[in-house]
Amino acid sequence: MSAVDFESFVRDLARLSGEAILPFFRSSIGVENKAGLGAFDPVTEGDRAGEAVMRQLIKRTFPAHGIVGEEYGAENEDAEHVWILDPIDGTKAFIAGIPVWGTLIGLARQGTPIFGMMHQPFIGERFWGDGAAARYEGPAGQRSLRTRPCTGLEAATIMTTSPKLFDAETKGLFEQVEARCRTYRYGADCYAYCMLAAGHVDLVVEAGLKPYDIAALVPIIEGAGGIVTTWDGGPASGGGRIVAAGDKRVHAEALAILNP
Amino acid sequence: MSAVDFESFVRDLARLSGEAILPFFRSSIGVENKAGLGAFDPVTEGDRAGEAVMRQLIKRTFPAHGIVGEEYGAENEDAEHVWILDPIDGTKAFIAGIPVWGTLIGLARQGTPIFGMMHQPFIGERFWGDGAAARYEGPAGQRSLRTRPCTGLEAATIMTTSPKLFDAETKGLFEQVEARCRTYRYGADCYAYCMLAAGHVDLVVEAGLKPYDIAALVPIIEGAGGIVTTWDGGPASGGGRIVAAGDKRVHAEALAILNP
Repeated sequence: MSAVDFESFVRDLARLSGEAILPFFRSSIGVENKAGLGAFDPVTEGDRAGEAVMRQLIKRTFPAHGIVGEEYGAENEDAEHVWILDPIDGTKAFIAGIPVWGTLIGLARQGTPIFGMMHQPFIGERFWGDGAAARYEGPAGQRSLRTRPCTGLEAATIMTTSPKLFDAETKGLFEQVEARCRTYRYGADCYAYCMLAAGHVDLVVEAGLKPYDIAALVPIIEGAGGIVTTWDGGPASGGGRIVAAGDKRVHAEALAILNP
Repeated sequence: MSAVDFESFVRDLARLSGEAILPFFRSSIGVENKAGLGAFDPVTEGDRAGEAVMRQLIKRTFPAHGIVGEEYGAENEDAEHVWILDPIDGTKAFIAGIPVWGTLIGLARQGTPIFGMMHQPFIGERFWGDGAAARYEGPAGQRSLRTRPCTGLEAATIMTTSPKLFDAETKGLFEQVEARCRTYRYGADCYAYCMLAAGHVDLVVEAGLKPYDIAALVPIIEGAGGIVTTWDGGPASGGGRIVAAGDKRVHAEALAILNP
């Protein structure tokens, strides 16, 4: 089955998970604390409901496939095809009522992401790609996604979810890159990568990502002509320290600073 | 003419400005640099188009009213009724393609905001209030806005557009408040105040706001049961250093730190 054939199945996953998650958005639901006292890592019932419905449909349709999800862990993850799910990427935005969270649905074959979708059910928009091409559909219609050219860091708009997500070691390196950029914006999670794919942002630098935070976004970014790797230039799909750029010149300059 | 009567007129302003602005959102438009070399203060053609169409309708409908706008300055600002307009609050979000900017339309009578609306035309949602009540309309229907109770800073979610918007004097005070809060989120501009009015966020602390950044939001926040003032407890509608809270206990604790 080719990546193209998976597209309509992924649309079904997106529709069903959106229906499961939306009743919890901007409602007065209890927020549990997954990380225990001290740290604050919100999980919502919407997160669980969205992942459960996707797992159910995947198991029924592709019983041989593996699944890795944020909420319910890994099943059969050595299978040839493995689905990588993050029902609500951007839980802080979700809990604050800000509609820049998204449902990430990725499919990897032999460890390499071959299809990914970011779906925002409240706004009703989705970004998807297969590494060779990427498309968008939303309130303003449907179109191809293409990154924009950018000559280097001095012309670049950089995004990161929060400068506080870096640890002592990575913070200084991030700040060196940020200081070289033309402008910055914080607080977008998966939207930062999708806006890079759409040609509105030039660079995203983050650290501490889980595989399910990035795997679905790789085929979108690459399909739009961008480049996404770890800070040392390795494959991005395992998470960790991630740098994505729309133009390889920006990626090379960022890598030179991030990987000294 | 009462505040209630202005509601349908403000809906017309919102509809027309949305139609004028939307063609520029996520398009490859040139971004001018209003602040000259060095600082980066993006202005888009959408900003100008949105304000021009609102000014035109206001002048035709209420020729005696004054207008203060972000793009085209002040006209007749000593009039009894003055409109305060920010066509795109959140220009950084707008330019990055992130749909958490909004059109702010405020009406002041003898210097006091009596009606305000935040409109997000891409998502199709609006928040409005008259100081006594506040309402919401969007993809999930229409409802009243009410702030949520919060016992104090230790239970509060705080938002600010960016920790970098504070100067040397205000940064330390903001950080003292933030350190006391349960959790934080950056990057929302007018959405932070609307989410406070909707009961999803407890505290917003900012500095360096212009009157048109906050005037329209005051009747929404107060209409939802919240409190918004300057850091020294004065009226918020003139801008500057602003603190908004959904619960007066949170406001009092923040003020004690921000106004030592």
